[in-house]
Amino acid sequence: MIGIIRVFTTEQVEILEQHGKVIKKYYDVPTVTKCISNQHFGIFNDETEALAVPKIVELGKKMEQEGSTLLVISCAADPAIDELRNAVSIPVIGAGSAAALTALAIGEPVGVLGITETVPQVVKNLLGKLLVGNIRPEGVTNTTDLLTPTGRQKGLEAARLLVDQGAKVILFACTGFSTIGLADLLRDELNVPIIDAVESEGMFAATLYRQLSISTIK
Amino acid sequence: MIGIIRVFTTEQVEILEQHGKVIKKYYDVPTVTKCISNQHFGIFNDETEALAVPKIVELGKKMEQEGSTLLVISCAADPAIDELRNAVSIPVIGAGSAAALTALAIGEPVGVLGITETVPQVVKNLLGKLLVGNIRPEGVTNTTDLLTPTGRQKGLEAARLLVDQGAKVILFACTGFSTIGLADLLRDELNVPIIDAVESEGMFAATLYRQLSISTIK
Repeated sequence: MIGIIRVFTTEQVEILEQHGKVIKKYYDVPTVTKCISNQHFGIFNDETEALAVPKIVELGKKMEQEGSTLLVISCAADPAIDELRNAVSIPVIGAGSAAALTALAIGEPVGVLGITETVPQVVKNLLGKLLVGNIRPEGVTNTTDLLTPTGRQKGLEAARLLVDQGAKVILFACTGFSTIGLADLLRDELNVPIIDAVESEGMFAATLYRQLSISTIK
Repeated sequence: MIGIIRVFTTEQVEILEQHGKVIKKYYDVPTVTKCISNQHFGIFNDETEALAVPKIVELGKKMEQEGSTLLVISCAADPAIDELRNAVSIPVIGAGSAAALTALAIGEPVGVLGITETVPQVVKNLLGKLLVGNIRPEGVTNTTDLLTPTGRQKGLEAARLLVDQGAKVILFACTGFSTIGLADLLRDELNVPIIDAVESEGMFAATLYRQLSISTIK
């Protein structure tokens, strides 16, 4: 079982399961999703990240005990990834590093689509000089803003701008873009690879899960 | 169609198709494989790499013209990858970078299994401080040496040594290990992720191929 950690608090099962649903759709692997407690607005600055770190570590340890064979921190900032890797004995994948590493495999200039003014540090560090632009769709400051037709249209406009700036690959530096299906819209409209962070974490997690299953069956 | 470039010369279809067969098995995507000409011993030093570079570029351009929508340079040294990326308008994946990036997604110390004394530069550069060891199985200096039961046994012994040296992930820095099925043998015997370079190139190529197909269907 792949354990998915959501780094905000929700009581709504449908919202909780959104990323697991994307991973199931693309890779058909079993997942279980849990979220951290008492943090309904998730991580949006250094303070809220610091608050989340020990919660992510405790949740990951619990999910390992409950039978997860690998863990995914499903947030493009990879919060608490080093701390969690030190705390558990199973592999830990992060959405941000997964997306950036997928871009590096293509090796072409990358335009980042985000909901903040800055690129998550892990994505920035990995992309290095391949990072050629970063745009927040107009009027979008949180993932809820994306849920409207206008939000999707602004996402497309921002991606087109990044291509004009020289991007040959578009990378989503927020997992919120996954849940509105922006990747497939952009794939229909643009001729460049679109890297969706949830799909990328799913790609690495599913590949690893399948081979860990071989090891376990022995 | 995914175009696979083999960087040595063979007239034997079965040998030519070995990597495509692995990718087909794991990812069920259509591939076409071609090899460079007049280089039966492939790349084994700087001179033979220099000799191969223009051949790889020409072959890649030809495969693009013949309908490949992305290319894979199926060799752990990623020979000619920058040159080929500059020469074609489709994405190019390399086996060495694909394997190293897969290891980075796991983020744990990596032991490299190779058939040479040194780690391919691209793998070394990407792994950075995560690289904790490099072993050539005893008595193995080319991929033919691996084709015997002794070769497989020596591969397993070398991987065990890497784990003893602190590796929590084993990476194959030679595509020859794929064709003898060493990954599954190690997965049966060891409890760490095994990164096979041909499987890794296939993972990235298949993921990208599927989404480029969406774009093309529009």
